Amino acid sequence: MGIVVQKYGGTSVAGVERIKVVAERIAKTAAQGNDMVVVVSAMGKATDDLVKLAHEISAVPHAREMDMLLSAGERISMALLAMALNEMGRDAISFTGSQAGILTDTSHTKARIVEVKAHRIERALAAGKIVIVAGFQGVSTELDVTTLGRGGSDTTAVALAAALKADVCEIYTDVKGVFTADPRIVRNARKLNSVTYEEMLEMAASGAGVLALRSVEFARTHGVVIHCRSSFTDEAGTVVKEEVEQVEKALVTAVSQDTSEAMIRVDGVPDRPGIAAKIFSDIARERINVDMIVQNVSHDGKTDLTFTMPKEDLIRSGDAVRRIISEIGAEGFSADSDIAKLSLIGAGMKTDPGVAAEMFSALAEHGINIEMISTSSIRISCVVRSMDINRAVKIIHERFGLAGAPSMSPAGRG
Amino acid sequence: MGIVVQKYGGTSVAGVERIKVVAERIAKTAAQGNDMVVVVSAMGKATDDLVKLAHEISAVPHAREMDMLLSAGERISMALLAMALNEMGRDAISFTGSQAGILTDTSHTKARIVEVKAHRIERALAAGKIVIVAGFQGVSTELDVTTLGRGGSDTTAVALAAALKADVCEIYTDVKGVFTADPRIVRNARKLNSVTYEEMLEMAASGAGVLALRSVEFARTHGVVIHCRSSFTDEAGTVVKEEVEQVEKALVTAVSQDTSEAMIRVDGVPDRPGIAAKIFSDIARERINVDMIVQNVSHDGKTDLTFTMPKEDLIRSGDAVRRIISEIGAEGFSADSDIAKLSLIGAGMKTDPGVAAEMFSALAEHGINIEMISTSSIRISCVVRSMDINRAVKIIHERFGLAGAPSMSPAGRG
Repeated sequence: MGIVVQKYGGTSVAGVERIKVVAERIAKTAAQGNDMVVVVSAMGKATDDLVKLAHEISAVPHAREMDMLLSAGERISMALLAMALNEMGRDAISFTGSQAGILTDTSHTKARIVEVKAHRIERALAAGKIVIVAGFQGVSTELDVTTLGRGGSDTTAVALAAALKADVCEIYTDVKGVFTADPRIVRNARKLNSVTYEEMLEMAASGAGVLALRSVEFARTHGVVIHCRSSFTDEAGTVVKEEVEQVEKALVTAVSQDTSEAMIRVDGVPDRPGIAAKIFSDIARERINVDMIVQNVSHDGKTDLTFTMPKEDLIRSGDAVRRIISEIGAEGFSADSDIAKLSLIGAGMKTDPGVAAEMFSALAEHGINIEMISTSSIRISCVVRSMDINRAVKIIHERFGLAGAPSMSPAGRG
Repeated sequence: MGIVVQKYGGTSVAGVERIKVVAERIAKTAAQGNDMVVVVSAMGKATDDLVKLAHEISAVPHAREMDMLLSAGERISMALLAMALNEMGRDAISFTGSQAGILTDTSHTKARIVEVKAHRIERALAAGKIVIVAGFQGVSTELDVTTLGRGGSDTTAVALAAALKADVCEIYTDVKGVFTADPRIVRNARKLNSVTYEEMLEMAASGAGVLALRSVEFARTHGVVIHCRSSFTDEAGTVVKEEVEQVEKALVTAVSQDTSEAMIRVDGVPDRPGIAAKIFSDIARERINVDMIVQNVSHDGKTDLTFTMPKEDLIRSGDAVRRIISEIGAEGFSADSDIAKLSLIGAGMKTDPGVAAEMFSALAEHGINIEMISTSSIRISCVVRSMDINRAVKIIHERFGLAGAPSMSPAGRG
């Protein structure tokens, strides 16, 4: 008997029939006495199609016009969803990002929400209406249409849930929740009933695509409980919240893989203070998000410096490095796209230093070479050859007994 | 060196290549030193496609949601057009109906413009930008998205031209202008260099589809000069304005046909005062736009009463008549869809009573039966069998010598 925010992704509203199914699900939740606010993405591949059109006209379209263009997609899905609810006899009303009071900064195509003025939504809820809101979009302080970048609809949903003090923010996708590993790789991967914000953040940053990183950050900051679930079943999914019940507090929670990054190694770098700073300030100026950085112990006053970045930034990164090679007195550099990152995540690992050793030996036993290592207090990531990644995920999932469902088999396998 | 408003219809922006051509035309007009405001429709059949989607979900979609849905179409075309201009190195910015200050009443799907607050457009023009505006849409006094109904983009363009005191409002379509007859029917139909608002209104109401009736009304009220022309050539089209130069003041200007109407005849109606009022107030309550009404001289105290209405309203009209047949004591009624309306229009005919007689005899000479007649001071319309309409148009076009180009052959043929 509170406010429920639901978010449906593009796959869930990809066609008229699916929109009708979503409308039925919404009506069902509303019939339980909840006030409903529903955030929708554009239908199916609609946004991708618009991006394609834009690029047929301009290699680098102006960001303001790009946002104007892309914001059309959610208008279509949200109006159709409101019509479907109206057709079922439910009173529904759709709001654009602007009408919903999603105020953003002026960073077109990747705007940040600065405030949510939800008066209009609140009035509509008070009038007994189901409110449908366009995900992914807002209005800037300059009164221009903005979009929130990749995963923006998740962020819209979480921001509205925070502003409206909703009981829960349900994020509907085409998967059943968060798993101990990608079920396409690991057949017996297990759906997690709950994970902490911290774990979800590490997983999102390590390649698990279920929830957008920014929406999880937003949820943690504002204490919004996210329920990540499938729009194709009635099964409960995965709840993301601050603290997870004791019964689930395993040593490790999940393993994930990321094949979206590439690596550059700068060879024969003079081991002097300021060299790394020089390289990475030049890279940063190119707005490239460097992920892992490893510097070997120096040998004869020279060292190697290796870092990873998104594959699409490899060419620009290489150009930046090439420009400074002679300036810093390095011997050369090489680029490598055939890498993948394997990550093991778990809140329980904070207090157990043995997890890393166990992970490294499992990989070594199967002849998988580790090229880079990076850790946080609840994550260990290793870069391996991309051809080894699926095997590595299976090995680690098995070694840490992640398939054992704790609720069904209390002893577990881990 | 003033403000030029241009409007491009769906055919002109139907694809990426056409959008680029339109951008070049805009840039050319801008290069002549004009401030440019460009109104665009949705791409090609985009609006029709959206209407179809809506009807797959709901037979009678809520009008507010319909407007939200349909307004997506112009966002796409206008953003792409702005991108195309930016790509050519021109500074362009797109505005939604709301951002352009098109304020309407709350009659969703057929809203009327109540005010144009063009401050934002004026600021953008002052900053040297080419302004692209979404046609067909506005924002209501309740802050909801509205659309202006059929031909709404023409109305947007004329309203902006009036508000900005533009030199001219150029309406680009896929035809070269206004012709003396439909060139698909009459091969030697002649393009008119100019017509008066009054003539254009009569022509629009008589089936000539070049300009939307409401936009011409708006232009007349505000004295906006419309230049109706093709986006596929550089030729001048037809100018619509208050007074037309003497050289063009022919007796008649154009002939048009309308096959969109149907007819109902109520038989054996008692010839008593109040009967016609009863019938047409019931029809009006159904929101059916009756066009022509003819009542025969009574015979034995009974008369026939015939009227026409849009074909799509025939069934509802029939239902309304059926309900009152016995109440008014009529003998019965019949419906007929196989009719067509032939109209002859000309400002010169005001002072020449011989035109009607000439028209009737021309039709009679060719054995074409006239079923109804209606006239205004500058128009004569006859209802004929639909199978006769194309022949009738050719006969009347020929009889009044409309093909003779007055500027090339001053004697003319009329």
